[in-house]
Parts: sequence; C-alpha cells; structure tokens
Amino acid sequence: MSKLFIAREACSFGAHVVIRELGLPIDVVRVPLRSAESPIHAVNPLGRVPALQLDDGVVITENSAILPYLADLQPGTPLFAPAGSAERAQIQGWIGYIGTEIHAAGFRQVNRPERYSADPATHDGIRQQSARTLHAAVAHIDRHLQGRDWLVGDRFTIADAYLGVFVRWISRLGPDFAGFDALNRFREAYLARASVQAALAAETE
Amino acid sequence: MSKLFIAREACSFGAHVVIRELGLPIDVVRVPLRSAESPIHAVNPLGRVPALQLDDGVVITENSAILPYLADLQPGTPLFAPAGSAERAQIQGWIGYIGTEIHAAGFRQVNRPERYSADPATHDGIRQQSARTLHAAVAHIDRHLQGRDWLVGDRFTIADAYLGVFVRWISRLGPDFAGFDALNRFREAYLARASVQAALAAETE
Repeated sequence: MSKLFIAREACSFGAHVVIRELGLPIDVVRVPLRSAESPIHAVNPLGRVPALQLDDGVVITENSAILPYLADLQPGTPLFAPAGSAERAQIQGWIGYIGTEIHAAGFRQVNRPERYSADPATHDGIRQQSARTLHAAVAHIDRHLQGRDWLVGDRFTIADAYLGVFVRWISRLGPDFAGFDALNRFREAYLARASVQAALAAETE
Repeated sequence: MSKLFIAREACSFGAHVVIRELGLPIDVVRVPLRSAESPIHAVNPLGRVPALQLDDGVVITENSAILPYLADLQPGTPLFAPAGSAERAQIQGWIGYIGTEIHAAGFRQVNRPERYSADPATHDGIRQQSARTLHAAVAHIDRHLQGRDWLVGDRFTIADAYLGVFVRWISRLGPDFAGFDALNRFREAYLARASVQAALAAETE
C-alpha cells in the first residue's frame, strides 16, 4: 500500500485531506520533522513532508505534484479536472501560487529568518517586513474569493484542500491578518468539511 | 490564437522553450515588467509573467500550471507523461521544487531583499545568507543530475525546460556557484538545443 508521510499540521495537511475526501487506500504515516532520527530521511533525503511513497518504492515530493497525483487516482473526480482542460490549469495555478507566494516566499521568511540573514539582530525586522509581503500575497487570494466559495469552478478542489492549510496558519498571525472577510468565510466552510475534521482529529490525537 | 506573455530572460523562458519544442501555434508576446504602462497588467493583475491567455480570454498563470498545460496540448509528447503516471508526478515535482526552493525561496531574496527587510543596511547580509540557502537548494539538483542527462526519465521534459532558466541565472552568481559539475553539463546540453537557441535569439533581438 502506498504511504503518505506527513507531520502534524504541516503543509502536508492538504494531501491528507484529499486522501480522506476521496477515500483513497493510502496509509497516512505521521513523522517528526527536524530530527535526525526521523524515518522521513529514509524516504525523502530533504527530510521534508509531504512525501508519497508508492507501492514500488518510487517517491513523489512537492505538494504541486502529490495533490494532482492523488486526484488522478480517481479519474473524473470533482476535486480536479481532465488533463488538457483550462480548469485543470487554473487549479494547478492556484496550487503553484500558494506554494510559491504564500509558503516559500512568505511564511518561510516569517518563520525561518535565519535562512535569510546570519545576523540575529536583523531577524525581527525580517519577520515584520516578510509579514507585509505575505499580507499582500494573501490579499490577492482574498480578492479572488470575493463572491465565490472556492478557488475554481464553484466546487471544492485540491487547490482548496491546500489553501486550507495556510488559511489556518494565517489565522494565527494576529490582528493584521484578521480582516480578510472572504478568507474567513472560506476557513469556516473548510473546517466544516468532514474530511478536514477527520484529518485534524487524526493529526492532533 | 492563444498568447504567452513573457519578459526578456525572465522565468517565462521555460514556457517559451516548450512552445518552440512542440511547435505550438501560440503567439509569444514580450512585455516590459515593473512598468505601470505594461500591457501585462490588463492580462495578469499581478503584473507578472508568464501568463497564458487562451482564445476565449481565460488566463493561466504560474509556471507549474502553464508548462503542463502547454505539454498537454500535444497528448503523448515525450516532454511530459500521462495523467495518473508516477513519471508525470516526478516531472511536476521538479517543477514545484524549482519554483519554490530555487525561485521563490532563493533568487527572490537574493534579488529583492527589500521585500524581506525595510532596513537597507541589512540587505547585503540578506543577499549573502540567501545565496547560501540558494546554494544548498541548487546542490540537491546537482546531486540528482549526477549520472543522468535530464531530470526525469532520460529525456528532455518540461521540467528541464524550466530548470534551464535558473541554470542560466545561476551561472551569473559568481565563483561560489561555478562548481556544480552535473549542472554545468546540463547547461551545455540545454544551450545546444535548437528550441533554446531560437527562444534566446527571439528574446534578445
């Protein structure tokens, strides 16, 4: 059986939600991060989650690859769209935007300023300015969601499963990030889904 | 006819190469960036390239969406792999890794430290430490390429078309980035392709 390696409430949460949305027969394996002894190192040399290990040992990494791969295990699922369709590209585009602008070029600098400056005296300033950069990136999503429930095509897709990860992280960033009305509505709808509740319960047990 | 909006030697170069590899009937339109008058703003409110405008006006953004969409216009092309295959996920995974770790969480901080600290006195330090972070991310690709010509499946794919953009940028980062032997081999093979030469000639004319 294939295995999805995740960490508690990490960016692997979206893939965990998709497995539960689709009822896929995939083992979800929780591992510690930032520990030399973690079993993740034997699966992904970068020591990161999510990592999807297939039956034959092949390992898929990156949310922008794992989320589509999982959805394609159920051709025709409303969570994705057929290869060649513009809708599929739009779903993939939002996953790309969230992965680059929100995670890699946003939360990463807020959470890990040491990767971007060796001088600890600069880290608070980096956190503050990076939070402004992240705020602008989040505002783009909030504008898009005005007047609609989900990112693409009036239905919950793998892009929404992924966005939900960061909407939860965003809600912990304090009052500057509290005023995104469309995103707040999205968060309520996301948290109300049975798949999300089941994944959350499993990750925090 | 669909239009691909690009900027000179920007990260849109990979999509430009794919259009020439496949001989796709898509107009490649060069636009200026960071100019309020650029026609890109009417296409992509973020003012960024690449942006692919389809015949019906729908706009696709993000390399991780545009590159697969272009390849899927020629089902069966060796540049990609069928939906549902592990190989497709590996190709998409490398595009994801390059977009997040090399571009968004690497070059972005080297090139735009002002987005991550409001204090200009810290920018040189941010450039230096970000270059170290980028170096580690590039080393992962160099290790993977040891003993192979292309990222996935012994053939040039859309992931290689995209990697080539950054391999060219990397070659301008100075001596610290000169010792990646496998990547240097890759660069030679990339630059030797007719599609790459034609795209370069068109972008620099």
